[in-house]
Amino acid sequence: MQEINKISILGAGNVAFHLGKAFAEAGKKVVQVYSRSESSASALADSLHAPYCTGISEVLPGSDLYLLAVSDDAIKEVAGKLTLTNELVVHTSGSRSLGVLKGVSSNTGVFYPLQTFSKNRQADFRKIPVCIEANTGNNAGMLYRLARAVTGKVYFFDSETRKALHLSAVFACNFTNYLYSVAESLLAEHDIPFEILVPLIEETAAKAAEHAPSSVQTGPAMRRDKRIIDEHLRMLEGDPSLSELYRKISEMIIKKHHVNGEL
Amino acid sequence: MQEINKISILGAGNVAFHLGKAFAEAGKKVVQVYSRSESSASALADSLHAPYCTGISEVLPGSDLYLLAVSDDAIKEVAGKLTLTNELVVHTSGSRSLGVLKGVSSNTGVFYPLQTFSKNRQADFRKIPVCIEANTGNNAGMLYRLARAVTGKVYFFDSETRKALHLSAVFACNFTNYLYSVAESLLAEHDIPFEILVPLIEETAAKAAEHAPSSVQTGPAMRRDKRIIDEHLRMLEGDPSLSELYRKISEMIIKKHHVNGEL
Repeated sequence: MQEINKISILGAGNVAFHLGKAFAEAGKKVVQVYSRSESSASALADSLHAPYCTGISEVLPGSDLYLLAVSDDAIKEVAGKLTLTNELVVHTSGSRSLGVLKGVSSNTGVFYPLQTFSKNRQADFRKIPVCIEANTGNNAGMLYRLARAVTGKVYFFDSETRKALHLSAVFACNFTNYLYSVAESLLAEHDIPFEILVPLIEETAAKAAEHAPSSVQTGPAMRRDKRIIDEHLRMLEGDPSLSELYRKISEMIIKKHHVNGEL
Repeated sequence: MQEINKISILGAGNVAFHLGKAFAEAGKKVVQVYSRSESSASALADSLHAPYCTGISEVLPGSDLYLLAVSDDAIKEVAGKLTLTNELVVHTSGSRSLGVLKGVSSNTGVFYPLQTFSKNRQADFRKIPVCIEANTGNNAGMLYRLARAVTGKVYFFDSETRKALHLSAVFACNFTNYLYSVAESLLAEHDIPFEILVPLIEETAAKAAEHAPSSVQTGPAMRRDKRIIDEHLRMLEGDPSLSELYRKISEMIIKKHHVNGEL
């Protein structure tokens, strides 16, 4: 089985940035960076000591891997403009199927790191799960070896399973962050600094690493504390949408945890 | 100003357990533990090398502080049975006002540690915010000194502000944990282990320590990615309540972050 050494990175956003760095640290060679945006392309290329291009037709053939780290919507468009034949091409999206790369090359796959990346935050890549899918066993094996070079956690999922994972991440990450921002607004109304909530937020997340979340649910709804729930709904009266959200989640918690599940 | 040294703890749950331990480590003397449940009372008392009682009439006078670490609903009842006159009595609840202790003693207060405690998890008390309220400046000062002995983070809030903080914690902690449990169920349907989400959950929480959550919102709703949102709603079709929750939070994210906020 061939080893992946020479990697071309298409895209220069957060995923490209963190994956590129992890590949370089694992001794892989990033041979070219492509991005429509010259400033993004050159910034990433500089950090990886690699050349860059801003035209898709300038992407050179002959790499062991073409990593499409572009936005979900751009995958099909960018991949469609590549003039490759047998080179291995992968995308990095949780929500797009492997099939989106059909016709781009005879060797295709997915290399999906499950993390929320920020440019200004260091990522400890060894702890980040990477989910792999490929159109052949041989490609799956090559991607597995590449993934193992950057992380201790590699999973094989088909597109349907990966989409379910992505959906669960929307609840556990995107929607959770939205709840943090609701708390941020409620605190701001009373001039309470948000930092006061941070230890609680971190402990709640840390608990999820040790206990099934459904087994450690707490709060007024879990206790069926109608008095507090009613008081909270009164406090939220000025924001009907928010009070509806409070009521809905409380009802769902009660329904999940109590046989006779009514508020 | 008198210093609080001798403390009686009423209640033997998680808050009593972690606060008692923090007080003992700060050199305070827990002189008595009360709980209706003999096994809870003796377990906590043993760990603090203190005597215990299971009858409220056996609670001895003369301590510098009576800490009511009982459930919200029990505060009034337990406090009402105490036969004290001038001793300082505090409760530890975020959602109950100071007024609930009226008539119990001429010196009352609140000592609310903002954290979710579990018996089997170590708490680093120095990082836990403690919110104080008292009926006199002198009592506030005494409670402040006690709080500073166990944590670096002390806040003075009146009952209304503390209730707003508690409400915000319901969103950021209780409801967030519920979203984790939604993810847990979605993953279980596809035999995906929950642990795969833990690094993402921890990073999302860690981000909140550095950036205002409203400034780092990501996900399909933030991108207004109608295609993915519709796909997710289809995937949730079998659970109308959950698909409604998905739609509601997505709509709220779009409304918050986009001028023309419609899905």
